[in-house]
Amino acid sequence: MAHYTLEYLNDAGITTCRGFKANGIAAGLKKSGKLDLALVYSSAPCTSAAVFTRNAFKAAPVWYDMQVLSSGALVHGVAVNSGCANACTGDQGMIDAREMAQIAEQAMEATPGTFYVMSTGVIGQHMPMDTINKGIHQAATTLCGERAGGANAAKAIMTTDTHSKEVAVRVNTDEGSFTVAGMAKGSGMIHPNMATMLCIITTDAAIAAEQLQTMLNKVIDSSFNMITVDGDTSTNDTVLVLANGAADLSAIESEAHPLYPALLTALDEVVTHLAREIVRDGEGAEHLVEIVVEGAVTKEDARAVARSIANSSLVKTAIYGRDANWGRVICAVGYSGATIEPEKVSLKLGDMALFSKGTPIDFDEEHASQLLAQKEVRFAVDLGLGNQSATMWTCDLTHEYVNINANYRT
Amino acid sequence: MAHYTLEYLNDAGITTCRGFKANGIAAGLKKSGKLDLALVYSSAPCTSAAVFTRNAFKAAPVWYDMQVLSSGALVHGVAVNSGCANACTGDQGMIDAREMAQIAEQAMEATPGTFYVMSTGVIGQHMPMDTINKGIHQAATTLCGERAGGANAAKAIMTTDTHSKEVAVRVNTDEGSFTVAGMAKGSGMIHPNMATMLCIITTDAAIAAEQLQTMLNKVIDSSFNMITVDGDTSTNDTVLVLANGAADLSAIESEAHPLYPALLTALDEVVTHLAREIVRDGEGAEHLVEIVVEGAVTKEDARAVARSIANSSLVKTAIYGRDANWGRVICAVGYSGATIEPEKVSLKLGDMALFSKGTPIDFDEEHASQLLAQKEVRFAVDLGLGNQSATMWTCDLTHEYVNINANYRT
Repeated sequence: MAHYTLEYLNDAGITTCRGFKANGIAAGLKKSGKLDLALVYSSAPCTSAAVFTRNAFKAAPVWYDMQVLSSGALVHGVAVNSGCANACTGDQGMIDAREMAQIAEQAMEATPGTFYVMSTGVIGQHMPMDTINKGIHQAATTLCGERAGGANAAKAIMTTDTHSKEVAVRVNTDEGSFTVAGMAKGSGMIHPNMATMLCIITTDAAIAAEQLQTMLNKVIDSSFNMITVDGDTSTNDTVLVLANGAADLSAIESEAHPLYPALLTALDEVVTHLAREIVRDGEGAEHLVEIVVEGAVTKEDARAVARSIANSSLVKTAIYGRDANWGRVICAVGYSGATIEPEKVSLKLGDMALFSKGTPIDFDEEHASQLLAQKEVRFAVDLGLGNQSATMWTCDLTHEYVNINANYRT
Repeated sequence: MAHYTLEYLNDAGITTCRGFKANGIAAGLKKSGKLDLALVYSSAPCTSAAVFTRNAFKAAPVWYDMQVLSSGALVHGVAVNSGCANACTGDQGMIDAREMAQIAEQAMEATPGTFYVMSTGVIGQHMPMDTINKGIHQAATTLCGERAGGANAAKAIMTTDTHSKEVAVRVNTDEGSFTVAGMAKGSGMIHPNMATMLCIITTDAAIAAEQLQTMLNKVIDSSFNMITVDGDTSTNDTVLVLANGAADLSAIESEAHPLYPALLTALDEVVTHLAREIVRDGEGAEHLVEIVVEGAVTKEDARAVARSIANSSLVKTAIYGRDANWGRVICAVGYSGATIEPEKVSLKLGDMALFSKGTPIDFDEEHASQLLAQKEVRFAVDLGLGNQSATMWTCDLTHEYVNINANYRT
């Protein structure tokens, strides 16, 4: 295996990868006048890989992108809008999604079938195609390979996010360096398989589409599929990776290629970072909560316990209230459906034991409150049965979550 | 089949059934000084049936009651406390649960093994047995077969409930009349299989234990197993039925007995009524929400869709906000895991169509808001695929839910 090092880049995003341009503009889809349309483009053709929501009500752009992906075509980019999800919009929605891609292809003078599309926002409203058309052309004429292009694009895909989410990792190898970068948006309906979550990852590494898809499936399972804000799985979730090979390194055609582990590690870093950022910025969230489950008989059991805790409204409100109400955590372990032997279960908050082998432990409530006052809170459960583990990220359930979601459409 | 009529009784409860006495007193378990210990007693021995939480961390009283049930003994009653759940309390918890039953048996001069026990409240704290002991004796000396006895008992089992929940149904048959009555407490951790939910049902009908258990399992599936407040399944949930035969009718020994359908119907009425009351009084709830799913291929699919909607935080906050955000309902249908063909799915709010065969319908937003302003809100989903249906009850997710649960222990 080749030697490599990873370097997180400051103030960087999808355009940090060579050969990618992007921009985000205010097309007028959001009443607020904020940025709401993004275009990402590489003149060099890209291999691509993608993972989509498993919701039966997939939005039109998801269906469209599944066709693009399965065509196996090399692609040039993606057009994304916020403000309207183009979900539950019937046949017209499919026509609109296709037209949105065609507009982007025409604006960039690209071959038909070489653009993906993504939409996020309110469900059940038709796309204002005139606005989309003008917006894409405006974005196309202002595309930028510098920092501003990526930064604007990351802002344009936001809905209830309080800030944009970007990351870039440079990988230095014996053969030379390449970069993996990404942008994502949350921030409600975040749940395994997957979330009202859009994520676009760029890389200037060169990799065959099949290898890229295998790699993406692998890293998704321990990142985007292990986060939850409110347990809802949306109609539009998409993670897309575009690889344009502009770093001029040898192409990864198999797992045996010396750059394969380097790209896998970098991709994993990027998606895990963005997944955590989405939860940290979950609707109304005050805490990022990490749930670690160890000692499970099977990986599926470990994940079931982690999800059960992470989705418990009672656990999430207790954390909001800075209340070390460990009984709610143990209760969620108990109804997870996983194989449990109560007398073998232990629980820690941070490094402080709350519950050991089925029995409560006297603990310092004040220290517990201090741990719960941190921005990042960590619960670790040891089932004491096997050697399988899982980590999941969630956030607390707050008054602000209710504020945001009781009045989303108004 | 014998002819029978059902009659809901006003201002009635568990002591309305002949031969049952009860009381609720303030033993000092709740800091507030409110009623916190109940005793229910029948001098005539009772057959019994019970259903318990499926949480792996069953509380000590649940384990104890499972022993009493499996012993097949005729029983005389149940002692219940609020304020302390006796859950996650290890070996001491088991000793305390057994001792609590023994105290009740001694206080009532009953044979060992003839009392059930139930506890609800904070998890992980040991039972103050001196307080329990004094409390049970105080309740035993003040037992009352009149209205007040049942009413006080219903109050003493409350935790975050805002009011007590009681119901009584008289059944008039050719052979004579009998009564089925019940009391229950919620109001958080309410979820299928089951809830921080205690329910005690009395009847003066006579029925073999085996038939009573079959009957209870049947009615639970469409009542207590179809309600949710917050998706959490607690450690203590118990539904107990005591039948003392004091109505002096012939004993139901098989399904062929002429009184079997009458008792089944009455029991179903009682548990469904109490289940709905628990949701209506869910923590912070402003609306009782009924989710009806029709047209499913299988019963399990119908239930999966109903549960998916009923547990969606986004649906529940939208109802709180009186926002006809049907996209969230459809989204929850889509991730339910049930067999769905999106283009066949329809949705109504009350009698107003919002979505028909996969396509949004223009609807009167003002009328929708009026429907959502009602105390009872009803969503009906038709999957358009088969003839199986399910009904589930939930409540909205409110600021007050967060208030209550962020500060429960303090």
